[in-house]
Amino acid sequence: MKVIKNELLPSPAECAVSLKNVIDALYVLNGKWKLALILSLVQASKRFNEIQNEITGISSKVLAKELKDLELNDFIKRNVYPTSPVSIIYEATEYSRTLKSVLAELSAWGEQHREKIKQSMREQSSL
Amino acid sequence: MKVIKNELLPSPAECAVSLKNVIDALYVLNGKWKLALILSLVQASKRFNEIQNEITGISSKVLAKELKDLELNDFIKRNVYPTSPVSIIYEATEYSRTLKSVLAELSAWGEQHREKIKQSMREQSSL
Repeated sequence: MKVIKNELLPSPAECAVSLKNVIDALYVLNGKWKLALILSLVQASKRFNEIQNEITGISSKVLAKELKDLELNDFIKRNVYPTSPVSIIYEATEYSRTLKSVLAELSAWGEQHREKIKQSMREQSSL
Repeated sequence: MKVIKNELLPSPAECAVSLKNVIDALYVLNGKWKLALILSLVQASKRFNEIQNEITGISSKVLAKELKDLELNDFIKRNVYPTSPVSIIYEATEYSRTLKSVLAELSAWGEQHREKIKQSMREQSSL
C-alpha cells in the first residue's frame, strides 16, 4: 500500500465540513441497496422483476420500499404505460447521474476489496 | 445540469461488473454510518465519546456495534492504553485510507445535495 508522507493535512474546520457533507449524503443514500439500485437504473431503465434479477439478495418487499424512497427523493421516475397489462418501467433521473463519480469510485474500490477478500481466503486455506 | 451527448456507452458485461463491484462494496460498507465513521477516524484517532459528539444522531448502542463491525473488517483498530482509567482510542487502519477517493466524491456530492435541498425549500416557502 502506498503511504503518502508530508501530505498536506486539512484543517479541523475543513474536516468538520467534509464529515457533515458525508453524513448528509448518507442520510439520503442510506442502506445497503440505494447506490446499487441507482447504478442499475442509470445503466438502463428496467421493470421491477428485471431489477430484482440483477440485484441478487434483495427481497420484493425491500425492493418496493427502496424504489419508493428513491422516487420520493427524485432519484428515479416510475413510468406507467397503458399497455395491457400495464407496463411499469423505472427510470433514473438526471439527478441520479450526478452520482456518477461516486459510483465510479465505489465500483473501483469494490473491485479491489473483492480481490483482497479472495487473497486472504487463499492465505487462510493454505495454512 | 450538463447533459453529455454522444457519450460512449459501456457494454452490458461492463455494466454487470461495475454493478457487482458496487454491491460488494456496499455489502461491507452498509448502513448509514460506516463511511462517516471511517472518515472521522481517518481525520484523527478518537475516543468513543469524541466520535459520538462528532457524528450527531448516532446512539451509543449503534455506535458500539458499528465500531465492532469496522474492527472485524479491518477498517479500524481499537487501541487500549494502560492508563488509569484505561484509555481506549479508535484509529483508522491503512485499509480505511484506500476509501479516500470514495469519501472525497461522496463529500463533494453531499455538499451539492445540501444546496439542492436548501434551494427547493426556499422555492417552496416563496410559493
